Amino acid sequence: MVQYAKPLARLVGEFEKLPGIGPKSAQRLAFYVLRLSNEEAQTLSDAITEVKAKIGYCKTCYNFTDQEVCDICRDSRRSEANICVVAEPRDLIAIEKTGEFHGKYHVLGGVLAPMEGIGPDQLKLRELLMRLQDAPVEEIVLAMNPTVEGDATAMYMAKLLKTLGIRVTRIAHGVPVGGDLDYADQATLIQAFEGRREM
Amino acid sequence: MVQYAKPLARLVGEFEKLPGIGPKSAQRLAFYVLRLSNEEAQTLSDAITEVKAKIGYCKTCYNFTDQEVCDICRDSRRSEANICVVAEPRDLIAIEKTGEFHGKYHVLGGVLAPMEGIGPDQLKLRELLMRLQDAPVEEIVLAMNPTVEGDATAMYMAKLLKTLGIRVTRIAHGVPVGGDLDYADQATLIQAFEGRREM
Repeated sequence: MVQYAKPLARLVGEFEKLPGIGPKSAQRLAFYVLRLSNEEAQTLSDAITEVKAKIGYCKTCYNFTDQEVCDICRDSRRSEANICVVAEPRDLIAIEKTGEFHGKYHVLGGVLAPMEGIGPDQLKLRELLMRLQDAPVEEIVLAMNPTVEGDATAMYMAKLLKTLGIRVTRIAHGVPVGGDLDYADQATLIQAFEGRREM
Repeated sequence: MVQYAKPLARLVGEFEKLPGIGPKSAQRLAFYVLRLSNEEAQTLSDAITEVKAKIGYCKTCYNFTDQEVCDICRDSRRSEANICVVAEPRDLIAIEKTGEFHGKYHVLGGVLAPMEGIGPDQLKLRELLMRLQDAPVEEIVLAMNPTVEGDATAMYMAKLLKTLGIRVTRIAHGVPVGGDLDYADQATLIQAFEGRREM
């Protein structure tokens, strides 16, 4: 079969590992990199290593940050009384884009999935309970994806949190059921926020 | 608007520059990189810099190679008497995948596009004429894309090469007109090769 020169084959192989990139796209990307100037290629390469070196988890909400505590957690204009719980950082970004929520966040780092060995201890649940001891939280908005695992995680958390006397709501199923919160349009997400209901 | 941490914003921005990658895909890729181990991210990063450092042009055919002269040019089992001329290295790869052509290649590095300032001197045409002085070439197969520029380039070359008494053919328009040789399926490309006609 066709042989790329080894360094080229290696780069095509690396690109193929990326989500949503097939062999053809991987080849296109590799040829694109070959046409970049050395400086441009170096910038791309550095951005990859830098993101790994500098980005970690916020020690309060577990969002990605390049500081100890992220910008949102340090923002005193945002309400401490409302915490929106999401599964992944990308969900936080989707919600931030709506501009509809003015509280703080908590990123679980996944959803309950017993079949894959992800129980409550694998999520940042204990860390959320710790936060609740320190801050006067009035409402927790659960914003998991409306999937089987997302629903189960929301149910579990609602049960747990209500014993602490905190109001627990969940964003409405304006987000298409079975869909992905990350891909919902902003109008749908705003509706979902406004239609949140008691659990 | 939403603020990514700076190193993350930089990586998303870098990915957005890649062909076929929009803002959403760029974000997905960046989060994917964040989830990689440090070693995996380093491997990806290194593959990018390495390809720039080690890959250059074959000094005979101007395909990409990590050596002075590429594997195809050095392959003594391939006929010296047939040279297939393509615009870009990706076209060479598309043809190699068919397994139908057993001669050598010559990569022009583009097609004639006077509006963009690409004339004969910007392509590796002189280099092809030099090759013809040294080697007993019997047939040159022109395999440009069947686009306006590809057609013009083929016409120009046919005129030039026939004065040298060399048989010049062009792959048949089995490749959909206006389409991209790079995306043709192998059966179509094989047909195109078999149906090549005198120019």
